[in-house]
Amino acid sequence: MSLRACPRLVSLEGGEGAGKSTVLDALVAHLRASGAEVVATREPGGTPLAEQIRELLLDPRHEPPAPETELLLVFAARAQHVREVVLPALQRGAWVVSDRFTDASYAYQGAARGGDIDFIAELERRVVGIEPGLTLLLDVPVTVGLERARRRGGADRIESEQEVFFERVRAGYRARAAAIPERFRVVDASRPPAEVAAEALRHLQRQIEAAA
Amino acid sequence: MSLRACPRLVSLEGGEGAGKSTVLDALVAHLRASGAEVVATREPGGTPLAEQIRELLLDPRHEPPAPETELLLVFAARAQHVREVVLPALQRGAWVVSDRFTDASYAYQGAARGGDIDFIAELERRVVGIEPGLTLLLDVPVTVGLERARRRGGADRIESEQEVFFERVRAGYRARAAAIPERFRVVDASRPPAEVAAEALRHLQRQIEAAA
Ligand SMILES: Nc1ncnc2c1ncn2[C@@H]1O[C@H](COP(=O)(O)OP(=O)(O)OP(=O)(O)O)[C@@H](O)[C@H]1O
Ligand SMILES: Nc1ncnc2c1ncn2[C@@H]1O[C@H](COP(=O)(O)OP(=O)(O)OP(=O)(O)O)[C@@H](O)[C@H]1O
Ligand SMILES: [Mg+2]
Ligand SMILES: [Mg+2]
Repeated sequence: MSLRACPRLVSLEGGEGAGKSTVLDALVAHLRASGAEVVATREPGGTPLAEQIRELLLDPRHEPPAPETELLLVFAARAQHVREVVLPALQRGAWVVSDRFTDASYAYQGAARGGDIDFIAELERRVVGIEPGLTLLLDVPVTVGLERARRRGGADRIESEQEVFFERVRAGYRARAAAIPERFRVVDASRPPAEVAAEALRHLQRQIEAAA
Repeated sequence: MSLRACPRLVSLEGGEGAGKSTVLDALVAHLRASGAEVVATREPGGTPLAEQIRELLLDPRHEPPAPETELLLVFAARAQHVREVVLPALQRGAWVVSDRFTDASYAYQGAARGGDIDFIAELERRVVGIEPGLTLLLDVPVTVGLERARRRGGADRIESEQEVFFERVRAGYRARAAAIPERFRVVDASRPPAEVAAEALRHLQRQIEAAA
């Protein structure tokens, strides 16, 4: 049982404040200008139920989830998102650009929290079943990303982690990108927004041609 | 990797309105009268976060969860419940009586919703890791249980299922009890409450002696 690659599914990955939401806007605008139908979405979230699961994950009011609880909640949200949003959109020929997708679980619940990678891979096979055709990893030094995110204010439960946690996230993402070069493009996101967007759009353009 | 049997963990299983909450009160009173510390709890739920997951599962306001989403949400709540409530209580020598436990996922998410039993078993091994020393299956014809539950009023998302769904739940529970006779006791719960409680207490008393 392996994953089905979906050429029109594009995911944006990276740590806090890497610039995912900023780049997503640029990718979506480019695709729309080309006349394509585009669904812009995010994880955890993307459906009403999945957004409520996101709130449980990020809300620091109740007791923190155990690592296993966090892992299953993230995949519960993803299972819902894939079935309600991603697959229906791809089936009608639309592009889907997602602010995070399954790779985030390898980086956050796997590399950073120490979750079992084999179990994560099994959850991916069993409840996700698909993978993006293109994944852009926006790579930025941890302190730069945190500083950008901090300027926005209001840290949630994950954003309140220690710096060492985000170093593990970054290393996890980079290792995963190195292991799956066919699908990943690593973008140096420490540069000014216009440069980052321009490189992201070049990768997207190649994917548009490949998917045509 | 197999499950660790916990002699002082007792679970109550059965369909809607079988009488689980009623029997739980009797078991807890009996254990407390014997001087034991007892934690009475329930699934899905048992911790603030797990109770919020329960609300997501039962709340019919947002879109219904896909079967895979439901399965992962139930196990997310259970992972939390086991780590925050069940294991700490057992470790200090308390009894834990739980209104539903993992067997409910075999009956509801497995037998009734058609979820993959191997996957459920893997989730059980990976995120639960323990099993009760005694499980009482309160078995009652579906219509009798539904009639009892209905008298209470206010059906949630699960309680709004069709009768055929609850027939599958009942059959799933009975098959599981037949497959694991060491741990399960099937109690005919169509009898008056006092008779049901008396039989449940006889099984508990034997378990108390075995656990001593
Ligand atoms: N290349 C960049 N250089 C400087 N600032 C940037 C750059 N990209 C984005 N920003 C700014 O940094 C902040 C975080 O960017 P953005 O919200 O796009 O990141 P993100 O990866 O989506 O963050 P989060 O993980 O918190 O959702 C925003 O204020 C944004 O305007
Ligand atoms: N043996 C019995 N005979 C008749 N009525 C009963 C019996 N046991 C419980 N009841 C009544 O049936 C209703 C449901 O019982 P109870 O709440 O204990 O069931 P339950 O299995 O916990 O239900 P639920 O699955 O909805 O939580 C209650 O009103 C209770 O008083
Ligand atoms: Mg963002
Ligand atoms: Mg009850």
